[in-house]
Amino acid sequence: MTEAQRVFHVKIMFRPAYLDHNATTPLDESVLAAMLPWLRDSWGNPSSRHEYGREARRALDDARQRVAAAVGAHPTEVIFTSGGSEANNLFLKGAASSLRPGFLAVGATEHPSVARPVAQLAPQGWTIRKLAVNADGHLSPPAWAEALALRPRLVSVMLANNETGVIQDIPTLAREAQSCGAWFHSDAVQAFGKVALDFRALNGTGVHALTISGHKIGGPKGAAALVMDKRAELRPLIAGGGQEGNLRSGTENVAAIVGFGLACERVVSRLAAESARLRGLRDRLERGLTALGATIFAPTAERLPNTCFFAFARVDGETLVGKLDRAGFAVASGSACSSANPEPSPVLAAMGVPDDLARGAVRVSFGARNTEAEVDALLTTLGTTVGSLRGLAAMAA
Amino acid sequence: MTEAQRVFHVKIMFRPAYLDHNATTPLDESVLAAMLPWLRDSWGNPSSRHEYGREARRALDDARQRVAAAVGAHPTEVIFTSGGSEANNLFLKGAASSLRPGFLAVGATEHPSVARPVAQLAPQGWTIRKLAVNADGHLSPPAWAEALALRPRLVSVMLANNETGVIQDIPTLAREAQSCGAWFHSDAVQAFGKVALDFRALNGTGVHALTISGHKIGGPKGAAALVMDKRAELRPLIAGGGQEGNLRSGTENVAAIVGFGLACERVVSRLAAESARLRGLRDRLERGLTALGATIFAPTAERLPNTCFFAFARVDGETLVGKLDRAGFAVASGSACSSANPEPSPVLAAMGVPDDLARGAVRVSFGARNTEAEVDALLTTLGTTVGSLRGLAAMAA
Repeated sequence: MTEAQRVFHVKIMFRPAYLDHNATTPLDESVLAAMLPWLRDSWGNPSSRHEYGREARRALDDARQRVAAAVGAHPTEVIFTSGGSEANNLFLKGAASSLRPGFLAVGATEHPSVARPVAQLAPQGWTIRKLAVNADGHLSPPAWAEALALRPRLVSVMLANNETGVIQDIPTLAREAQSCGAWFHSDAVQAFGKVALDFRALNGTGVHALTISGHKIGGPKGAAALVMDKRAELRPLIAGGGQEGNLRSGTENVAAIVGFGLACERVVSRLAAESARLRGLRDRLERGLTALGATIFAPTAERLPNTCFFAFARVDGETLVGKLDRAGFAVASGSACSSANPEPSPVLAAMGVPDDLARGAVRVSFGARNTEAEVDALLTTLGTTVGSLRGLAAMAA
Repeated sequence: MTEAQRVFHVKIMFRPAYLDHNATTPLDESVLAAMLPWLRDSWGNPSSRHEYGREARRALDDARQRVAAAVGAHPTEVIFTSGGSEANNLFLKGAASSLRPGFLAVGATEHPSVARPVAQLAPQGWTIRKLAVNADGHLSPPAWAEALALRPRLVSVMLANNETGVIQDIPTLAREAQSCGAWFHSDAVQAFGKVALDFRALNGTGVHALTISGHKIGGPKGAAALVMDKRAELRPLIAGGGQEGNLRSGTENVAAIVGFGLACERVVSRLAAESARLRGLRDRLERGLTALGATIFAPTAERLPNTCFFAFARVDGETLVGKLDRAGFAVASGSACSSANPEPSPVLAAMGVPDDLARGAVRVSFGARNTEAEVDALLTTLGTTVGSLRGLAAMAA
């Protein structure tokens, strides 16, 4: 080992415990290994009609089959995009452009990559109806009934929330929306790989499109998919060479798509065992947090097994995240997918959590490499850190 | 060496000569090496505020500086996208959405990732004016003068054509468009890395935005940029978490962006020597082609040094590409960036090339690893292949 390698090795060994898997996940080693040939030797453009192009095209076809199999879809229903945000924008703007404007119903706790394109549709004549949620994060039944009475043409409700992990009852919602003839989309970026997902079954209840993403499931950044019932008509967001059945032009990111395909296959094959293990870590953490006096958000709702969103009264979340980072724990405050935003989490606001408690929000999201020892170490650190932060706050008061 | 490794090695050794660099380029080994740490150990989300996120953010900042330096722009003028098609769509649709509809002038030989989003703007009230080209592929001065008289609000003219390599006189066009107050965009995907590019100088003549892409210059697929004067107002194509100054949301593809940054730096540092070398290969090929009786398209126009677009009368281009592929030469027929399209090249049609000759079009585009020996071998193969194809055609007639 050279000195540079030793320093690098030490740096890697002493890295903080990564507890932020809803933001992004480590790239699985076997996924990277599967990608490397497509970066090293087989870098052809799938649209080229020579050997380099044909082998890249075969890799795309193979990855499309893996993704489709992992979510119970047909390969022709998989549209590759560069990421979940693009897939959400593609469906929402693409469907809105091919429909006569009307009501669009959207969850109040959607990810910004759903909420913001929806807001962009208002000037085009769409009336946006935000679907209120209860204190537990689930859609409020009266709000949902009122929205359905408006006969929305488009509905988008996330499968699981990125901050709280709360899971919506998508089959029931989709069945009810079917009577309106609405196109129903669900952002499944956080749900996929953590709970079972079957597009064919969901499509039977009235779900027309799902968004899934590679880098949330041990795959690479740069590959995601909109899984879609081909009866939905979309205007492409990125028009051009006609790739992805004319729905998403641009040279395909072959290596990332290959990695995404394998990551889908792997995460689904391990889902049952891994989700039970993650739930064990999460429950262990929540028992400890409760003993320390923390508030867990949406504790009784059906939630993703890996996600815990909590706050300590009178402790600022940003400050706590900074302290934990220096103490060797990488966790998130509010949504880690968006850029700097000093406002408390809109998800918690929609759930009626008071601002002062919401400002304390911290998210722990577990993944494949996490251990019970990390949970216990985090709890020990939280015990001392929260105590000292409260002491400082009391002195300042 | 295991048997599997030996078979793989032999397969790689005997691969066809790659002569299709305008479609995509091999990923430079040093670029891949620079990407690997961001795939292996440093896979954080740049929006995360812990160590993993901060190191990813620093990598993005560094790559942005390299890209900016390579094209003579300020880092704040670089907007990363997933590819050139996305960057073209972002500028055209994004600018059109923030302007009052009017005339939009666009080159007749633009890449589909410019031509198709422009066509999508017509239903929104934009009047599209296609700028005719001469037989040599340059914009026709009377057509350009007529378009300017309409006072277009948006102009998009590519810097160099992907098929013919013809270079437009962008500074002159931009200066003339400035009097209309038009926003001027140029797709520089094919030009960048093959001819010198200085955004600051072009911006001084009235160019507001350039598109460049990683995988055309030895970088990875999945990273490109819109380089843009920040006075232009854009509505984001992908709205969401607010990344890229709110102009392109979605978790950044850190590894690909790191590779793109290094690829920009490398291609610019070698530009003078490499473009002279490529021009030598191209001229050698064209002397041989002329001797074999081929027609070179736009032979006297200023063209990219690496690109040769030609046809043999009475020889079908698709058939010739297939024969060359089997003989060990990977070349393109018409545009290799778009999917299967049986029509002859619209670029050649716009230049007034008769359909029967245009159907013979074959593109050779050289890159870093090509040699004189490959040129000579290609010419030898072309001599025999074209002769036999013509013989078959004569027998069939």
